[in-house]
Amino acid sequence: MSNEKRLFKLIGEIKGLDEDAMKAAKERQDYLAKPPGSLGRLEDIAVKIAGITGKPAGNDVTRQCVAIMCADNGVVEEGVASAPQSVTLSQTINFTRRYTGVSSMAKYFGIDLLVTDVGVAMEIPEELYTDSMVTEEQKIPVKIVNRRISNGTRNLAKEAAMTREEAVRAMLTGIEAVKAMKDAGIQLFGIGEMGIGNTTTSSAVLSALTGVKAEEVVGRGGGLNDEGLAKKIKIVDDAVNSWCMGDPIEKLAKVGGYDICAMVGAFLGAGIYRIPVVIDGFISIVSACVAKELNPRVVDFMFASHKSFEVGYVIAMDRLGLAPMFDLGMRLGEGSGCPIAFKIIEAAVASMNLMKTLEEASIDGDYLEEIRRENLF
Amino acid sequence: MSNEKRLFKLIGEIKGLDEDAMKAAKERQDYLAKPPGSLGRLEDIAVKIAGITGKPAGNDVTRQCVAIMCADNGVVEEGVASAPQSVTLSQTINFTRRYTGVSSMAKYFGIDLLVTDVGVAMEIPEELYTDSMVTEEQKIPVKIVNRRISNGTRNLAKEAAMTREEAVRAMLTGIEAVKAMKDAGIQLFGIGEMGIGNTTTSSAVLSALTGVKAEEVVGRGGGLNDEGLAKKIKIVDDAVNSWCMGDPIEKLAKVGGYDICAMVGAFLGAGIYRIPVVIDGFISIVSACVAKELNPRVVDFMFASHKSFEVGYVIAMDRLGLAPMFDLGMRLGEGSGCPIAFKIIEAAVASMNLMKTLEEASIDGDYLEEIRRENLF
Repeated sequence: MSNEKRLFKLIGEIKGLDEDAMKAAKERQDYLAKPPGSLGRLEDIAVKIAGITGKPAGNDVTRQCVAIMCADNGVVEEGVASAPQSVTLSQTINFTRRYTGVSSMAKYFGIDLLVTDVGVAMEIPEELYTDSMVTEEQKIPVKIVNRRISNGTRNLAKEAAMTREEAVRAMLTGIEAVKAMKDAGIQLFGIGEMGIGNTTTSSAVLSALTGVKAEEVVGRGGGLNDEGLAKKIKIVDDAVNSWCMGDPIEKLAKVGGYDICAMVGAFLGAGIYRIPVVIDGFISIVSACVAKELNPRVVDFMFASHKSFEVGYVIAMDRLGLAPMFDLGMRLGEGSGCPIAFKIIEAAVASMNLMKTLEEASIDGDYLEEIRRENLF
Repeated sequence: MSNEKRLFKLIGEIKGLDEDAMKAAKERQDYLAKPPGSLGRLEDIAVKIAGITGKPAGNDVTRQCVAIMCADNGVVEEGVASAPQSVTLSQTINFTRRYTGVSSMAKYFGIDLLVTDVGVAMEIPEELYTDSMVTEEQKIPVKIVNRRISNGTRNLAKEAAMTREEAVRAMLTGIEAVKAMKDAGIQLFGIGEMGIGNTTTSSAVLSALTGVKAEEVVGRGGGLNDEGLAKKIKIVDDAVNSWCMGDPIEKLAKVGGYDICAMVGAFLGAGIYRIPVVIDGFISIVSACVAKELNPRVVDFMFASHKSFEVGYVIAMDRLGLAPMFDLGMRLGEGSGCPIAFKIIEAAVASMNLMKTLEEASIDGDYLEEIRRENLF
């Protein structure tokens, strides 16, 4: 079977949420010892998790991972990024050293990182690489997974960034990552990235997908000046209006990046393997939008973490029809919004699992006996 | 020394933030391996924690507690609450059973609960009580701490809810709670409450404090209908415009509750004992506003958790000059917004502690040696 056929077969396997489990979860929420609805969106989150797992209560989301897709973008030779291309290499390596923003939170909270090189331009030392996305002990590897398609994409200001086949291969890498996380027992994951120039590529993909003008979706990324911003807008505008026709995969191939393609695959994988998935910032949410184009059901498996500072974020969020959980003015990428979102989802699941119904929590003749029996004090 | 003299002596002891530690923390943030400012408010949080502890980095906020002040309000006989008064009793007991909203999250995340009866109307069985706010093993007790001033306050629709001396005693109870948490090694705490009718009392306190009309600060609380809401507004309006003159303590005594007084004391205690404190919902933030009136420096020790659904919340927040970290449509009270806020503060501190500077994270000749030495893989 061709890669593309395999991709579409997998996309077609995504089933919707378990409505019965959600109904039972909703009913339980309404009987818990609190004014109905008073836990707000935490209740909705717990109900959605029930729909994903098929279990109204007793869900466990403690085994967590952030999948980080790393790749370079040819378009950086136009001067659209504020940081040098070497930062993609150094940060990809630094994820494994647990030195970066998302790594520090992941280390602190005991969250795994699945770091994949889908096409970093500069050379990564062989000893830092592994071929497998899951170790023999069924764990997420600490090393960088080698799925490098090439030394970065081509310059989308001059030609298509990828061939269609390259884009499909990167998407399949994303799906493979979710399969590996499933095998490693991961119950909740997030999708982040590293790739200098990828706010340019994701802006271009969003503009191509939605028809919204370049100037409304292009932001300053890591910290571009006015001149750089104007250039970035022009490049996205030109590319979208000359190269960018066809289906979503064609658009991805022409103006996207390997990182974005792999992230699209990972969002699709969340639906295929039924694992709740957290969206990080701008690049992550643009990838989520592309996944939705390919199968709208994947949105049922997604949770939006933080409201990114990047200008195009709100347009992407509207398209997705979700709402972010928090707004802390973050704009780092890497998946750095995911750990906090994991904690919010854990709080939602904990209240569903551990709170009692009004009846169970009644203060009648027996409760003192129960306190003695359970040795609560 | 009279209780009131003792109170004002303690309030006078509050010192400001450590500016040198904050400056050093800010500098470190700017050199970490990320675009400056890209972790948004997480950076500000880490800097504020540094100002509280005096340490630019290496701070630890893992030992956490929610202090829950429980008391009844005489005004409920007017029919301003949607739940019966017995719920104050049952939920106060259910905190110790870890059955409620905040308890379930606290149990899950390993957070202590310091439950204090400042004046619950109905009788709590003697065996559930303890006299001490900290155990002999320097731990937070699981039992309910008995600091009951009376069987609930008087009806503020007819007379002053408390005497000034009663209000001062409840405030000192709040300060005592923070001293006990400090002795138990708590590094970060939140302030919650249980008291049927306390959205009425806190609306009245906020209106009396700010001069904002009753109709703009009174909400539906646990789920009041239109008729109940109209009555609640009229009662707050009448009380604030007839009884409520004098200094902040006088206003607290006339239209507040024991729970609110103790919470004001706990916010002051955060400043006195220099522990970062998290504001929960509406009643918590009104208490924070009163604490600010008594010493504006206490705001330096406060972190706002979630944007409460209750209408007066935004007015109180504006007065405080802070901003909430997240908005999940929660309106349960109990301190239920605190656990998630604790996790956000932990994420902020973790990134300050564990991220490396650009220099430390450089990819040069030595880093492979370091990876081998540290046995990272």
